[in-house]
Amino acid sequence: MSYILVLSGPNLGSLSKRDPSLYGSLDLDELVARTAQAAATFDLGVRHVHSNHEGELIDAIERKEPGCVGVLANLGALTHTSVALHDALELVGCPVVEVHLSNPAAREPFRHVSLIAPVTAGSIAGFGPLSYDLAVEAIVRLSRSA
Amino acid sequence: MSYILVLSGPNLGSLSKRDPSLYGSLDLDELVARTAQAAATFDLGVRHVHSNHEGELIDAIERKEPGCVGVLANLGALTHTSVALHDALELVGCPVVEVHLSNPAAREPFRHVSLIAPVTAGSIAGFGPLSYDLAVEAIVRLSRSA
Amino acid sequence: MSYILVLSGPNLGSLSKRDPSLYGSLDLDELVARTAQAAATFDLGVRHVHSNHEGELIDAIERKEPGCVGVLANLGALTHTSVALHDALELVGCPVVEVHLSNPAAREPFRHVSLIAPVTAGSIAGFGPLSYDLAVEAIVRLSRSA
Amino acid sequence: MSYILVLSGPNLGSLSKRDPSLYGSLDLDELVARTAQAAATFDLGVRHVHSNHEGELIDAIERKEPGCVGVLANLGALTHTSVALHDALELVGCPVVEVHLSNPAAREPFRHVSLIAPVTAGSIAGFGPLSYDLAVEAIVRLSRSA
Amino acid sequence: MSYILVLSGPNLGSLSKRDPSLYGSLDLDELVARTAQAAATFDLGVRHVHSNHEGELIDAIERKEPGCVGVLANLGALTHTSVALHDALELVGCPVVEVHLSNPAAREPFRHVSLIAPVTAGSIAGFGPLSYDLAVEAIVRLSRSA
Amino acid sequence: MSYILVLSGPNLGSLSKRDPSLYGSLDLDELVARTAQAAATFDLGVRHVHSNHEGELIDAIERKEPGCVGVLANLGALTHTSVALHDALELVGCPVVEVHLSNPAAREPFRHVSLIAPVTAGSIAGFGPLSYDLAVEAIVRLSRSA
Amino acid sequence: MSYILVLSGPNLGSLSKRDPSLYGSLDLDELVARTAQAAATFDLGVRHVHSNHEGELIDAIERKEPGCVGVLANLGALTHTSVALHDALELVGCPVVEVHLSNPAAREPFRHVSLIAPVTAGSIAGFGPLSYDLAVEAIVRLSRSA
Amino acid sequence: MSYILVLSGPNLGSLSKRDPSLYGSLDLDELVARTAQAAATFDLGVRHVHSNHEGELIDAIERKEPGCVGVLANLGALTHTSVALHDALELVGCPVVEVHLSNPAAREPFRHVSLIAPVTAGSIAGFGPLSYDLAVEAIVRLSRSA
Amino acid sequence: MSYILVLSGPNLGSLSKRDPSLYGSLDLDELVARTAQAAATFDLGVRHVHSNHEGELIDAIERKEPGCVGVLANLGALTHTSVALHDALELVGCPVVEVHLSNPAAREPFRHVSLIAPVTAGSIAGFGPLSYDLAVEAIVRLSRSA
Amino acid sequence: MSYILVLSGPNLGSLSKRDPSLYGSLDLDELVARTAQAAATFDLGVRHVHSNHEGELIDAIERKEPGCVGVLANLGALTHTSVALHDALELVGCPVVEVHLSNPAAREPFRHVSLIAPVTAGSIAGFGPLSYDLAVEAIVRLSRSA
Amino acid sequence: MSYILVLSGPNLGSLSKRDPSLYGSLDLDELVARTAQAAATFDLGVRHVHSNHEGELIDAIERKEPGCVGVLANLGALTHTSVALHDALELVGCPVVEVHLSNPAAREPFRHVSLIAPVTAGSIAGFGPLSYDLAVEAIVRLSRSA
Amino acid sequence: MSYILVLSGPNLGSLSKRDPSLYGSLDLDELVARTAQAAATFDLGVRHVHSNHEGELIDAIERKEPGCVGVLANLGALTHTSVALHDALELVGCPVVEVHLSNPAAREPFRHVSLIAPVTAGSIAGFGPLSYDLAVEAIVRLSRSA
Repeated sequence: MSYILVLSGPNLGSLSKRDPSLYGSLDLDELVARTAQAAATFDLGVRHVHSNHEGELIDAIERKEPGCVGVLANLGALTHTSVALHDALELVGCPVVEVHLSNPAAREPFRHVSLIAPVTAGSIAGFGPLSYDLAVEAIVRLSRSA
Repeated sequence: MSYILVLSGPNLGSLSKRDPSLYGSLDLDELVARTAQAAATFDLGVRHVHSNHEGELIDAIERKEPGCVGVLANLGALTHTSVALHDALELVGCPVVEVHLSNPAAREPFRHVSLIAPVTAGSIAGFGPLSYDLAVEAIVRLSRSA
Repeated sequence: MSYILVLSGPNLGSLSKRDPSLYGSLDLDELVARTAQAAATFDLGVRHVHSNHEGELIDAIERKEPGCVGVLANLGALTHTSVALHDALELVGCPVVEVHLSNPAAREPFRHVSLIAPVTAGSIAGFGPLSYDLAVEAIVRLSRSA
Repeated sequence: MSYILVLSGPNLGSLSKRDPSLYGSLDLDELVARTAQAAATFDLGVRHVHSNHEGELIDAIERKEPGCVGVLANLGALTHTSVALHDALELVGCPVVEVHLSNPAAREPFRHVSLIAPVTAGSIAGFGPLSYDLAVEAIVRLSRSA
Repeated sequence: MSYILVLSGPNLGSLSKRDPSLYGSLDLDELVARTAQAAATFDLGVRHVHSNHEGELIDAIERKEPGCVGVLANLGALTHTSVALHDALELVGCPVVEVHLSNPAAREPFRHVSLIAPVTAGSIAGFGPLSYDLAVEAIVRLSRSA
Repeated sequence: MSYILVLSGPNLGSLSKRDPSLYGSLDLDELVARTAQAAATFDLGVRHVHSNHEGELIDAIERKEPGCVGVLANLGALTHTSVALHDALELVGCPVVEVHLSNPAAREPFRHVSLIAPVTAGSIAGFGPLSYDLAVEAIVRLSRSA
Repeated sequence: MSYILVLSGPNLGSLSKRDPSLYGSLDLDELVARTAQAAATFDLGVRHVHSNHEGELIDAIERKEPGCVGVLANLGALTHTSVALHDALELVGCPVVEVHLSNPAAREPFRHVSLIAPVTAGSIAGFGPLSYDLAVEAIVRLSRSA
Repeated sequence: MSYILVLSGPNLGSLSKRDPSLYGSLDLDELVARTAQAAATFDLGVRHVHSNHEGELIDAIERKEPGCVGVLANLGALTHTSVALHDALELVGCPVVEVHLSNPAAREPFRHVSLIAPVTAGSIAGFGPLSYDLAVEAIVRLSRSA
Repeated sequence: MSYILVLSGPNLGSLSKRDPSLYGSLDLDELVARTAQAAATFDLGVRHVHSNHEGELIDAIERKEPGCVGVLANLGALTHTSVALHDALELVGCPVVEVHLSNPAAREPFRHVSLIAPVTAGSIAGFGPLSYDLAVEAIVRLSRSA
Repeated sequence: MSYILVLSGPNLGSLSKRDPSLYGSLDLDELVARTAQAAATFDLGVRHVHSNHEGELIDAIERKEPGCVGVLANLGALTHTSVALHDALELVGCPVVEVHLSNPAAREPFRHVSLIAPVTAGSIAGFGPLSYDLAVEAIVRLSRSA
Repeated sequence: MSYILVLSGPNLGSLSKRDPSLYGSLDLDELVARTAQAAATFDLGVRHVHSNHEGELIDAIERKEPGCVGVLANLGALTHTSVALHDALELVGCPVVEVHLSNPAAREPFRHVSLIAPVTAGSIAGFGPLSYDLAVEAIVRLSRSA
Repeated sequence: MSYILVLSGPNLGSLSKRDPSLYGSLDLDELVARTAQAAATFDLGVRHVHSNHEGELIDAIERKEPGCVGVLANLGALTHTSVALHDALELVGCPVVEVHLSNPAAREPFRHVSLIAPVTAGSIAGFGPLSYDLAVEAIVRLSRSA
């Protein structure tokens, strides 16, 4: 079955502990379950990799298999500091959608830079868990028009 | 009928003349018609204001009527330079979604700053006309949860 | 009758909707009426131009008539971004007083720059509607000593 | 008849009031008349749009008609601040020549940046009204070699 | 009797030696006498502290007595460099008005920063001795509305 | 038994190889043993996590157990570059003390920024192994006053 | 009797008026008394110099007597702006510990620079009055190992 | 016979090897011959100095003779880096026109600065060899109006 | 047998997928095999550590054994962002040669900084696989002259 | 008798304790005595003011008497930070020579800026006590040619 | 016979006088002789141009003859400041290898920028005279694969 | 006979044409003659090298002979831009005094940087021709104390 690769970067494991006005009240398992549900309506599976390690996220990107139709990437704080993830995503060979629960552009200045933007198809930020639903839809549409 | 206020900033009138790899091949009328269709599936209308004038866009924001459930704002180049639109959107009283056909974060550095981000609910960028469909969905969801 | 040209820039039309701790509770009509009253005690009239359009504000400056003894300019967000208004005010031929209800120097960094300062006689900021009374008095005194 | 589109930005309406050592002593009508004369020697007409409004200048660029062989653009202070005019000129489809009466590179630092340079064929600055004559000649030569 | 605390920073003792087109022709004693007269019309006294020493100015702020209704602060060059005066004024407990004879925003760049702005009620600059009259009026109005 | 979580970032495993004038002559085991001794005088245990991996340090922070009364964090070079550790420590729920053997503020400029400072209770730097003793004492006192 | 020189910079005289969440609730006399008590447990006296004047603080450093075993320096805002205090402390001939009640690294950016760090043994910041106790202990330990 | 001094800076000797879309297809001799022809129509000669050496270009400027009516200066890469040529041209005593075949403002950022702009009458850039014709005409007109 | 420690940073595992004009057409195994061959001509072995994890690379550096005559380090994107690798290499105790297949100095600005340069013997960049051969030779020569 | 005003800023009282390779081995009294001797050969006296207080130095400048032929100003660290001393020296009415024992331009970057340079006749730096002899000679020559 | 063009920039004539820990102990003649020997093993000659003049180095590049298989360029300090040499090397038509005896990336910040990097095949730095041997080998390999 | 090497950089050959309020009224020959006279009073000769070429100035420094007791260097605009002259003077082996007729620190910002300061004994600036007399005296004194 074709699938979407969902990447969760550092500290998303503590999601339910973070400020709910910024992040919503779901924990990471619930968020992924909901995303899987959204994908299922398009007959797609979801493979989820969560890691606090930059290296494991790169490993996961390299291990991507042929059935992968897109990457839904919420890399957390690494979005703003990792040149290595930029390089990894550049080679992934399917559309990447940058996703954030909160809107980094409206927070501290060190979150205003996205090092991965140049290698993504687009970004969706600020809508809480809804950001993920929208990203699933975007990946589906992008993969169909490819 | 409740409606979404769609704002189109400078040069969107020349949409079909711009680089289709960045902007898609629709012209502005077609893009708005498609957006209206998306809104109609949620029983919402669309009011569209296109202007090359910063002042007229602010006027339109001030004239917003009670039935408006959200603002879908593609302010073009003014996104990056207009403090006045920041101030106008701050007062609008319903969710604002920043939309771009291309992804400004992946283009020239002078497009990397969004002055309106702090007064929006979120942003969607880089998916071509699909950005508009996703934004309609976002506004609907945001207005329901309000 | 001699008069003061009062310029109100973008978003001052929404004055009563903005944060009253920064802007006071008057709306723009009330603010101008109060200013006219202050001017009347010096036998001066007031002509008021409010626009969200940079171009209309420049037009108004160019149309200034001989009886104008001074310009009371609250250009809102354009204070910080408009080289064109700097150039227009440079040619106006009577004293210009920069006025703000709140104190831009104590707000976001993008409000710390005044592009028009080099072509004004002085500035008054932070006193709410009282800023306008003080500015009227300043213009009267400046025009008498000219 | 083929024609050159002459664009005059903010404050050029006050030309004769500005410092004659920088701007010469012609007013805007005289300057355009002289430019029309120069164009006539090449059997070209001139259409002139002067506005203090960024939006009207963009409108004028969008309304360009087939006979237009080039744009002679003196956008005044907007040269340095308008991303929107950059985007508009990028789509105009005929050579654009940036013109200035004075030499911005020799004045205040905020005039040293030209946002429109990347979308022009070239620039001519500092020669007073002569800048316009030279620009007419440049447009003629560019359009012939196209 | 209630009073206004007038602070005069470094080099104001040499006032009459400085450029009269920027500073007017009064010396510091005359300027304070005039300010006292303005305050007297509101039944207020004036206490004046002039010092070239940052430390003495802070001492004076700390010694403020209960009858003080406001601080009229012309801190001269220390306006632009003293974090310590920022901290002192933050604690003063009555409205502070920043005053300048000339307009720092129109002079050398190192005078464009006001470190004390965030802890003042507002600022008045550029009107010569009239700046002081306006500041007295501002303090009176601010203290009444408190 | 209640305990302090001691975090040792990259290269602290090579402690005894580094410049003893900056770092003292203890190796990491000895340093932790000494710290445990200091904690024992307050009836506290110590759990130590040393890793050269940013991700493992975040994992350790997330695994913190209820008995933890404070975090003594010497994150080495990651202090200056890791937004992700900032986010992790923000959620830890007990006081964090930033500790350094040498004083980063007195070394290369790239060590002058602490990304974690905003989410710590305080910092102690420059005293060699004594920094750890002082940090233990600080944590004890902070946890008692909580 | 040997002693510690305690330096208190500008505005510490108003300690009890400042934000107690940042500074604690002691006034300066109480803070010094507490510090003296801490020193007494090591058979050390304390000499305290508080001044709002940079010059007097430098004078005090120059007047240091032989029995001085260390300097506990809380220079307030001057920490961030005084090159002269850097130069004075460089010559003092005994260990200097930089102390802050709050943590400057977690406050406004203009408090992130310590000009005196290169001439201190270390710094302790953010623990309120406890910072002073820790500093006394640090000085004692440093002077013993000297 | 009166003459124009034509200066050709580093690498113009390789003109015909450079990208013809930026530089046209003439070599330097042909370009100078064409310029001489343009000058001859105004009864002017041309003296040409080409050097890869900053020093020789300054020598040539110093050796300028009385009959020189203007300097046509294409200093190549030295335009952007040579303070010494700025100083030399400042003293030359006749109008200087800065000329470029391509438009530096539309190329790499390190070509956006013109150090010589403040000492020139104006600049013409981007028109290929036509830039030279226009510059000859500009010099003639400037020298007649002097 | 003495050996060279070859370090391969993030994304080098995808070598054969990257732009062959920048990186050549070998995959990582082939590149290491070729390097081992080069080392063998000098009677040296090669130990290779490839990881996408900064921490594992630091671990490998710490585990270096006595027979190691030099480190051939291609740290990929971490070259530009890792202070921790700078600190690790500083302690390694044998010559380090920085190697790149492409020349970072000729690519995006964020690749122009090498944080590890101060702790290396030298760098070789831009020659594709040949960079590795040259580095082997350099290490051999450096270790002989030590 | 005419005299030179010698100003010694913060920390010059500790002169003999500072690094003799930078400052020479004289103490301040010896340095002033030597300077007085140099002045005496020109029939000039010396008045010396040494203070660690910016304010006292400004006071001294304001108290200057008619016989003063020049100011020899070694303001120490205040050279780099005091706008107030810039303003005071601007009004002094006789030539000011900036003097330094060491050469600030060859030391830490924060010593590379001289805020007083725009209001001095010239500067002499780096020659140890000889700097003072040269400055005396410079003042004599400047005052004779006035 | 085919040859390598070896360029030696300013101050390489004083090679043997410079710090031998950075530059080795050969003088320039010896260094070139050694390089010629290395080239001879590949049946290549060497032509050497040493000049302290930017212009002469550009001249030499322009005079390159057909047999030249590569340029070994050690441009000394001009590496960091000469746009003109960038332009000259861009046209040279054979591979250029940037060479340094010391490693500029590990020295003063003003040596961290290489203006010529974008027009070279690669760079070798930090290995003393060995850098030259490696560069010869690199040129040979590059010219064979061309 | 022992001698001083006097270096005159670009544009000093036009000395008498430059602004006499900045440069005095001597031409370069007169200035050197006067300097030779000053040197003669100390039984020293003068060798003078004037060149507009950076390379020739470096050549002259390299050709320095044993009798040279010091370098009096007025490098004009190259002071601010030449890393190569910094490197050359670093090797000269006798004291270098940086001299300027005007005071660069009081002129345009691009003259505020001295690249050669770190390799000079000191600098004298702003005294017109007197700067040269003082520099001769400084060199004499420095060479005697060496």
